[in-house]
Amino acid sequence: MTRYQHLANLLAERIEQGLYRHGEKLPSVRALSHEHGVSISTVQQAYQKLEDLQLITPQPRSGYFVAPRKAQPPVPAMSRPVQRPVEVTQWEQVLTLLGGRGDKSMAAFGGGSPDVSQSSLKPLWREMSRIVQHHPGDILNYDELAGRRDLREQIARLMLDGGTVATADDIIITQGCHAALSIALFSVCKPGDIVAVESPCYYGTMQLLRGFNIKAIEIPTDSQTGISIEALELALEQWPIKGVILVPNCNNPLGFIMPDDRKRAILALAQRHDLAIFEDDIYGELANEYPRPRTIKSWDIDGRVLLCSSFTKTIAPGLRVGWIVPGRYRDRVLHMKYATSGTTVPTTQMAVASFIREGHYHRHVRRMRQIYQQNMETYTCWVRQYFPCGICVTRPQGGFLLWVELPELVDMVCVGQQLARLKIQIAPGSLFSASGKYRNCLRLNCGLPPTEQHQRVVAQLGEAIRVAIEWNNAR
Amino acid sequence: MTRYQHLANLLAERIEQGLYRHGEKLPSVRALSHEHGVSISTVQQAYQKLEDLQLITPQPRSGYFVAPRKAQPPVPAMSRPVQRPVEVTQWEQVLTLLGGRGDKSMAAFGGGSPDVSQSSLKPLWREMSRIVQHHPGDILNYDELAGRRDLREQIARLMLDGGTVATADDIIITQGCHAALSIALFSVCKPGDIVAVESPCYYGTMQLLRGFNIKAIEIPTDSQTGISIEALELALEQWPIKGVILVPNCNNPLGFIMPDDRKRAILALAQRHDLAIFEDDIYGELANEYPRPRTIKSWDIDGRVLLCSSFTKTIAPGLRVGWIVPGRYRDRVLHMKYATSGTTVPTTQMAVASFIREGHYHRHVRRMRQIYQQNMETYTCWVRQYFPCGICVTRPQGGFLLWVELPELVDMVCVGQQLARLKIQIAPGSLFSASGKYRNCLRLNCGLPPTEQHQRVVAQLGEAIRVAIEWNNAR
Repeated sequence: MTRYQHLANLLAERIEQGLYRHGEKLPSVRALSHEHGVSISTVQQAYQKLEDLQLITPQPRSGYFVAPRKAQPPVPAMSRPVQRPVEVTQWEQVLTLLGGRGDKSMAAFGGGSPDVSQSSLKPLWREMSRIVQHHPGDILNYDELAGRRDLREQIARLMLDGGTVATADDIIITQGCHAALSIALFSVCKPGDIVAVESPCYYGTMQLLRGFNIKAIEIPTDSQTGISIEALELALEQWPIKGVILVPNCNNPLGFIMPDDRKRAILALAQRHDLAIFEDDIYGELANEYPRPRTIKSWDIDGRVLLCSSFTKTIAPGLRVGWIVPGRYRDRVLHMKYATSGTTVPTTQMAVASFIREGHYHRHVRRMRQIYQQNMETYTCWVRQYFPCGICVTRPQGGFLLWVELPELVDMVCVGQQLARLKIQIAPGSLFSASGKYRNCLRLNCGLPPTEQHQRVVAQLGEAIRVAIEWNNAR
Repeated sequence: MTRYQHLANLLAERIEQGLYRHGEKLPSVRALSHEHGVSISTVQQAYQKLEDLQLITPQPRSGYFVAPRKAQPPVPAMSRPVQRPVEVTQWEQVLTLLGGRGDKSMAAFGGGSPDVSQSSLKPLWREMSRIVQHHPGDILNYDELAGRRDLREQIARLMLDGGTVATADDIIITQGCHAALSIALFSVCKPGDIVAVESPCYYGTMQLLRGFNIKAIEIPTDSQTGISIEALELALEQWPIKGVILVPNCNNPLGFIMPDDRKRAILALAQRHDLAIFEDDIYGELANEYPRPRTIKSWDIDGRVLLCSSFTKTIAPGLRVGWIVPGRYRDRVLHMKYATSGTTVPTTQMAVASFIREGHYHRHVRRMRQIYQQNMETYTCWVRQYFPCGICVTRPQGGFLLWVELPELVDMVCVGQQLARLKIQIAPGSLFSASGKYRNCLRLNCGLPPTEQHQRVVAQLGEAIRVAIEWNNAR
């Protein structure tokens, strides 16, 4: 973090805590410079940042004052999905969203791409280039079926931070987290089975269920504590549910981290009902808190949790390096890896292993955690500023995704189609429901750097929503 | 091709055609040097090569003589598999075979790895290194779901050689041919369905069926003309078969190229019975004949052929770049690609596209075709020399795989276990049958350069088989 960011954060905290109150004059630039031993321009930058965030307002020739405190928008309430197994729909919408990837002029707020523009990633392609030149034999030949051992050893070490104890032999490399989930699901379920999911639930996971003809039962989920264990228990009594897919850490799309006692409670429930848990930990390393939150897998004593993850969000999507810790399902998972795809690309596996080994990974992730946290604060401010009243916004505990709930009548699928013409891509909430609920919601990717251009996009977005509301009211 | 190889081929042809007869003296080194305008040492090298192939024998102070003509071993007869749908077994054996990949001290005659040691591959990793350094944005981000357009355009051009007319939009990139087949099968079939396969059939395809709980009905297959259309027709009358998996060009493991009229006949049969054809063309570019043979897809007018291929055998396995031309199943195939794995690695796709665009691909494949053809001749000679009598050997029309049929009693699964201790890995024939038939057969990878060391391995192999036969006779 740079000095001015550090100072801005400190001041923001003091305002938040009420140490500087609404309307109060802030210390002069000179005084702060003296107090913190930083340059005048550093203080000016920090004040500019706070002004951007609308926490302070400048008054000509008088200095800076604490801005009137706008109430934070409330968080979304517990979701209330359909309470029976349904077939997943919405593929056409997902396809439209994916179709936007090729178009570089599009402001891609709909996808889940991380920021890959930071200099802390440079060692990655330096390493990759070195590997390509010096290890042609390794990069050209078939890899081991379970994936490269050196990488698996590095992953085993990383996972200790989340409390997951696994050896290299317990890990199977896959082509990203999506492939990991796909292989995991396919190793446990068969077509026609029922699987429980959080609601809202990441559209990629939904489409995976659709592809395999597995039915989804969507369970009410709280935007701060996660899936309702009580509702899941009720569903288990009614339906022959095979497993449950969870994103307990830095949930996609809601951003919560399930409290530890709830993680343990859901594991106990799974044990009682002999359920498999598919734990998607792809955003787990990007939690605001440090050390990172524990995985459900970390308490798993009978191997029923299949932990799936990847370096897509923490390093880069183009690597396509993910993994499964399959517990008791190892043999079946290895066979399904062979059946669905065979071995994975050695080049990117080697580059990642080396990126971790040389210490670049931890440095990069530490940096990205802070950047994403600041991004989300900025985007939340913008949403508050440009969106109409009466909205709910999540307060993510990690990752880089915001979930916004708009008034009931707004149809984000329609608004999204209009926005696409303006080269703005968003993910309407309906993608995150098996049956197309949450049309009045949207997910916003705060991985995109909060530039002025992106600020304008959020303003356009707010305007489009405002128009939609007015149009609805006029009918 | 070097000069001496050219000359050796020419002389071998003349011997084959009977222009030089058994026992006849060959022209002197000096005469040949004069006749062909090449150096003395070139002629000596050519003669050495022919001697290695046992086509000629030197007689001290008299020169070279045409060797007594050994009868070529006969080719295997039409296979006779079980005539009903069965569940695929043999996974444990496949796992053992795959397990050997990590061990570099193993002579890997069991797998299907191509030779990646040739200098004509060098531009590939030069390109890859350049791409990594100059296009970090492209290699780090998500790719298009269908795969990179520049690569698809190159593939569309390549496929014209096999008569396949497709645009970039008709092609979907996958993580290798295995993933292509997996997605293709999964897009058309569901668990419990029956699919017809050639017999013997590549074990990877078999295990794919097993993974998806699809039953295989093995159809008698001739080692020179391919699947018996009559037997397939009979099976179609008895069973609700959904599709047929074929490797019509440079078949794995038998090496045949289906004659064009038989390709058309099987397509007509598929049309009459509304079957899908899964055409695996992975070895098609490595046919001995030039121009390369046509695909069944090239006659496909109603989009029922799903052509699957990759650069695994023509360039390198580590790239994991394959593709499908899915015909009428495009939407479903795209969805299944998304469901099973999402996007593929951009780096290797870009490297391949550039390798083709710059003309390196055609140069490399031309070279490899010749190398593999020579390798197979040499290995066939060695098999003839070191293996006991009473064997049948295929005469592959391309690719780099030999299939050897031994006397009925020999159990190559047992022999293989003994050989593994000597660090020799072979693929016992039982892998190529759903129900473990062909235990008296083996597949030999002639992609491995025919070095002296490998000659010794073939000798050891022959010896192990001889011992097994003697042991059986003694019982």
